[in-house]
Amino acid sequence: MKIVCSKNFLLNSISTVQKAVTGKTTLPILDGILISGKDNQVSLTATDLDMGIETKMSSDVEVVEEGSVVINSRLFGEIIRKLPDITITIESDNTYNTIITCGKSKFNVVGQDPKDYPELPVINENAMYKIPQDLLKNMIRQTIFATAQDETRPILTGVLFEVKDGVLSMVALDAYRLALRKSNVDLSSNISVVIPGKTLNEVGKILDSSNEEVEITFTPNHILFKVENTRVISRLLEGEFINYRQIIPDEYKLRVKANSKMLLDSIERASLLAKEGKTNLIKMNITNNNMIITSNSQFGNVHEEVPIVLEGNELQIAFNSKYFIDALKIIDEEEVYLEFSSSVSPCLVKTIGSEDYVYLILPVRLIAS
Amino acid sequence: MKIVCSKNFLLNSISTVQKAVTGKTTLPILDGILISGKDNQVSLTATDLDMGIETKMSSDVEVVEEGSVVINSRLFGEIIRKLPDITITIESDNTYNTIITCGKSKFNVVGQDPKDYPELPVINENAMYKIPQDLLKNMIRQTIFATAQDETRPILTGVLFEVKDGVLSMVALDAYRLALRKSNVDLSSNISVVIPGKTLNEVGKILDSSNEEVEITFTPNHILFKVENTRVISRLLEGEFINYRQIIPDEYKLRVKANSKMLLDSIERASLLAKEGKTNLIKMNITNNNMIITSNSQFGNVHEEVPIVLEGNELQIAFNSKYFIDALKIIDEEEVYLEFSSSVSPCLVKTIGSEDYVYLILPVRLIAS
Repeated sequence: MKIVCSKNFLLNSISTVQKAVTGKTTLPILDGILISGKDNQVSLTATDLDMGIETKMSSDVEVVEEGSVVINSRLFGEIIRKLPDITITIESDNTYNTIITCGKSKFNVVGQDPKDYPELPVINENAMYKIPQDLLKNMIRQTIFATAQDETRPILTGVLFEVKDGVLSMVALDAYRLALRKSNVDLSSNISVVIPGKTLNEVGKILDSSNEEVEITFTPNHILFKVENTRVISRLLEGEFINYRQIIPDEYKLRVKANSKMLLDSIERASLLAKEGKTNLIKMNITNNNMIITSNSQFGNVHEEVPIVLEGNELQIAFNSKYFIDALKIIDEEEVYLEFSSSVSPCLVKTIGSEDYVYLILPVRLIAS
Repeated sequence: MKIVCSKNFLLNSISTVQKAVTGKTTLPILDGILISGKDNQVSLTATDLDMGIETKMSSDVEVVEEGSVVINSRLFGEIIRKLPDITITIESDNTYNTIITCGKSKFNVVGQDPKDYPELPVINENAMYKIPQDLLKNMIRQTIFATAQDETRPILTGVLFEVKDGVLSMVALDAYRLALRKSNVDLSSNISVVIPGKTLNEVGKILDSSNEEVEITFTPNHILFKVENTRVISRLLEGEFINYRQIIPDEYKLRVKANSKMLLDSIERASLLAKEGKTNLIKMNITNNNMIITSNSQFGNVHEEVPIVLEGNELQIAFNSKYFIDALKIIDEEEVYLEFSSSVSPCLVKTIGSEDYVYLILPVRLIAS
């Protein structure tokens, strides 16, 4: 193989596929990147067997001799990063010894046989869903934080991706909270799959904030995201997702309207002392026009007041502040509704003027409050 | 005590004194910051007993009631950071319960008795040296990296601060290299002390890049840096520093002139593979007009060429690349001289047109090269 390409284009491509190199594999070849030159296109591929990323470089490259080789991902990235911003030549012989030359620099790197590199699943790119990149990026950001971090129920480490009657819903939940983000999309066929949180996290980084479309294809076991020249292929999680509709209450007894930023700042401050005391417990005392947020630990106590508009009766309720902070941090709207029923029922956080977000947070039951 | 001050001014002052809170103390009160209001000035003090920092706030503050209290440094910093950018009131009672109020936020924090807080050494600010801040900041940056990191010879963890006949020399060295930075200064009395590297590291962060002066006072055991409203007081290291003049050779057999940046880039690339092989060994083959830098490990090998101007004979010599990289990184000048005598003698790195910097690096002896 012999290819010639520009430094910056190559470096960007390496950064993209490196997201699939976990460094935790027991198969040493998976620490490598597969570099292939064919039909005057250079492609880079990396996989951890759960997720694979392939990116094609078609401009600013020249394939002098077709072929492929596997090079250690970290070493390859470090070498290219340190080279000057001029043309780079990569040439490997039939023992996979690879020579990288650039100006007066010449690296001779031990490569591996591409035949030993696992192939990515072949996916027929037919049944495609198309979503603007910025929309999907936002939907990922606004749900992924609520996935379960421990593996006791593997299905909860993923995000439900459900298309039903032209509405895409993405849902993540753990034992204490749920994040639901909906959007009207131009997708005709219904589907319901669970995508690993790790995959969505990396896809979110690859997506940019343009409204260029990302194309999504499903097979029974896999999902393929196609973003410009990059393809991300991932296993889907097996099993049934929790019936989230049953969890979200339809009614509430009282509703609070508050400024998102003021509420977030107050809860963050209130949790400073709770954090020191190794708990995240905050108490909300909801009265007319005013929400008083307090917390205390052996280090002291905090009293915060947030102006609100209350519909309904007053209420005292306690929460783990982390779950409130996580939800309020990803809300871009200026004002939120908080819907409550009792001190032992979940609180719903919604944005005003849109039904697209719903966050559910379970309260902490206090023995005496 | 009751004081009123602006958020940003207070936060900056906390950041300054927090540099003396190590969090590694066995004396719990040293995790605190001493806050004192007196004579309409508020001062913050922190110390780890080796180094103490005190900063005074005289504008944007009001002392309503004189007094003092000790508050946990991390908690105090986090609270102030999270408060809105308006006026903050801090009030402590005679049990050192401290109330911090700001807008609708009210923190009640457990404080400690200021009588238990160790006093900083009293230093008579008479025999003062004055140095522009930017000069001292640079002199610290250009020497401190060469201090010894292990404590087997404690004196080498410090930087020699020597004034002799109007020349200030700062010197740091470990077993493998030496950094010397000189400057003509308007200081009349001679002195030779060793300042802990840790102290200089923090002082370097407090200094800004202006030519406002920092005032330095010595006692037999302590040094005081006064920078605007901040005083840093540190113990000096005890013992004799190594006679560094004996180590630096006066003569050389060959001299290389090279572009600093090109040399640094080439050595960094050459060390990429050496690093992977857990060694930092690079070889330099110095020929007329060209320095060839190579290194190899089980992962491959690198060949770099740097254009040079050579005076003298050709030479092959090997180094730990880290020491070269450390030295070249802090050189601001475009070109450097490298002076050599043999493959087993030290290399001197000097800047062209100034005698102010000298870096000495010991070569690695190779059994066969």
